[in-house]
Amino acid sequence: MEAVRMGVIGIGNMGTEHCKTLISDEITELKLAAAADLRPERREWARKNLPKSVRIFESGEELIHSGTCDAVLVAVPHYQHPETAVSALQNGLHVLCEKPIAVTSGQARQMLQAAEASGKTLALMFNQRTNCLYRTVKNFLSSGRGGEIKRVNWIVTDWYRTQRYYDSGSWRATWKGEGGGVLLNQCPHQLDLLIWLCGIPRSVSAFCHAGKWHHIEVEDDVSVYMEFENGATGVFVTSTGDLPGTNRLEIDCEQAKIVCENGTARAWLLPENERTVCFESSNPWYQAKTEEIVLETDGKNEQHPGVMKAFAAHLLREEPLTADAEDGLRALMLSNAIHLSGWTGKTVFIPFEEKLFERLLEQKIAGSVQKTAQDRTYETDHRNTAAIL
Amino acid sequence: MEAVRMGVIGIGNMGTEHCKTLISDEITELKLAAAADLRPERREWARKNLPKSVRIFESGEELIHSGTCDAVLVAVPHYQHPETAVSALQNGLHVLCEKPIAVTSGQARQMLQAAEASGKTLALMFNQRTNCLYRTVKNFLSSGRGGEIKRVNWIVTDWYRTQRYYDSGSWRATWKGEGGGVLLNQCPHQLDLLIWLCGIPRSVSAFCHAGKWHHIEVEDDVSVYMEFENGATGVFVTSTGDLPGTNRLEIDCEQAKIVCENGTARAWLLPENERTVCFESSNPWYQAKTEEIVLETDGKNEQHPGVMKAFAAHLLREEPLTADAEDGLRALMLSNAIHLSGWTGKTVFIPFEEKLFERLLEQKIAGSVQKTAQDRTYETDHRNTAAIL
Repeated sequence: MEAVRMGVIGIGNMGTEHCKTLISDEITELKLAAAADLRPERREWARKNLPKSVRIFESGEELIHSGTCDAVLVAVPHYQHPETAVSALQNGLHVLCEKPIAVTSGQARQMLQAAEASGKTLALMFNQRTNCLYRTVKNFLSSGRGGEIKRVNWIVTDWYRTQRYYDSGSWRATWKGEGGGVLLNQCPHQLDLLIWLCGIPRSVSAFCHAGKWHHIEVEDDVSVYMEFENGATGVFVTSTGDLPGTNRLEIDCEQAKIVCENGTARAWLLPENERTVCFESSNPWYQAKTEEIVLETDGKNEQHPGVMKAFAAHLLREEPLTADAEDGLRALMLSNAIHLSGWTGKTVFIPFEEKLFERLLEQKIAGSVQKTAQDRTYETDHRNTAAIL
Repeated sequence: MEAVRMGVIGIGNMGTEHCKTLISDEITELKLAAAADLRPERREWARKNLPKSVRIFESGEELIHSGTCDAVLVAVPHYQHPETAVSALQNGLHVLCEKPIAVTSGQARQMLQAAEASGKTLALMFNQRTNCLYRTVKNFLSSGRGGEIKRVNWIVTDWYRTQRYYDSGSWRATWKGEGGGVLLNQCPHQLDLLIWLCGIPRSVSAFCHAGKWHHIEVEDDVSVYMEFENGATGVFVTSTGDLPGTNRLEIDCEQAKIVCENGTARAWLLPENERTVCFESSNPWYQAKTEEIVLETDGKNEQHPGVMKAFAAHLLREEPLTADAEDGLRALMLSNAIHLSGWTGKTVFIPFEEKLFERLLEQKIAGSVQKTAQDRTYETDHRNTAAIL
């Protein structure tokens, strides 16, 4: 095939942007063939704004069974990711799924099984992996130049939200509607990047505050302490209540320190491995003569279009995906583990007790209060995530 | 009296520096009258290097009872602070005590009681309070310009130590000799500053790693999550194994963010209080128009001499101390609480169960291995602490 025929399921904030991207000249190997949304007003928007050739459906199921598409982009609310993706896969379609892959890692496993059984591709929209800043850090870490990672500290609080944001959708920031707060809505990219760069933590001890800064029932303030398999430790702090926020990622390695902040990745390089210096230096207060450099990037930050292009190239020529289903599962496992630790007040080891997580989430859903807010679709939301940092 | 006659008890690393400071022209209202050390070689150093007028004693007790001093500067190992200070106070001498005030908060309370009973002054050598950077942050916070504190994040890992450092004293980094590691040796200033700037946490959840980077039995890597009375949260990360380290203090307030790093305190000022914006703005993704400023300092960073001058001025003219005994107790309570949380794996609320802390410390001391290292006195150590940050 010359171009992959793509269907977008869900024309909300993200789905709308994806439709616009797909009909632009930027993506040549994906062709927007169809779009679906349960809401008449969003279908109306689609009829008015998308080319006449794009078929509009009243549901994802209709689109999936229409025979109009080779692949679908799943942009429905989190809870509907599994059933939508599994249905598409079972009906022979490839899937590019918005983040998070699902709400529970158990659901995500079912999605992976469906992909395995169907032989079709399940990819994740982890667009921040296309960010040149994180790619250059990934390259540096992979090069081995810095040695083992010893510590990571990420403060990511630069996604301030007002109460109006949470009032803009009845599903928003409810256990029933989203299954979580800042962890599931804002953090999936950073949790994925953390794993991509540093590996998945062995354990997490989390402090999650629900409705700390907003009138919501889910968490909007989270601090996490992590331990990794190699003994490295880490701290991850996030919130939607800090103004102005911070996005500062520090990774301390045996022979280098890296700090990403303000759109730049800096590295301090040591002449020797600290683990050697520690036991061989005769200087009690050894101070390293470090070389400070800016990690050069290629300047490219393709974001969603980059993920889409890689998805098409994978289907057409077996080129690597930006992120696959396993990556989606791992990021969600970390997210779920943080929730579980926060809820139980205990350190959670990964892999964790998934049934316990599901039971506690069910309890929260049972106590969830459906909001009466009017659902609104904003067309500017995801641009925030396109910034370099 | 014209000048306070001062005795220095303990002529190790710090005591040696204090003697040099006291005989310099810098301090006019304190006069070095005596010095004491149990070790012949340190008394020998004192006889060779101090003016003939300075009396040299073989023990703190001899110095205290000699009638040569109005006040003493206690610079003996941590464990001996209480008995030395209490003896001096009970014998009518004022005391300026090196940090930490003691090893257990119970001991510190006895010191406070002795000061109370004697009517003499017990002051703490919290020289980092003289640092213009922290003073300007303190002034900013006290002004109310930023509103309430919401979050604090301090990474202070810029005190790298090699194994040689820990091998330089048989008492170093042992439960029996020091009663702790990085928390008791390197951190007392920062724990004091944290309390001075943000108040004492209501609870701490700590992750203390003993001998993580060095062959020592005490902690050399600590991550702490804190909660404050007003609901603010915080993270404090420290280690003597990071190279090059970081010293970055971020304080997020309702109407400002402050970051101290690389010798500069920056503030981002908001036009409105975030707590108001959150519920009144119609913009879901409100982005504040912040004003970024450098918090101006007076450039003064007097360190130990500054604390000594204030101590003299307090005794002579009742001027304010840099830090008093209560400040010493509070900083130690926080330190003890962090240890207790790390040892028990539980969140510790302040005030904590002091008897439990003492019992667990006793167990650690009982299992402590006395090292055979040769004790060395370095004369350059404390200069590290004189840096602006």
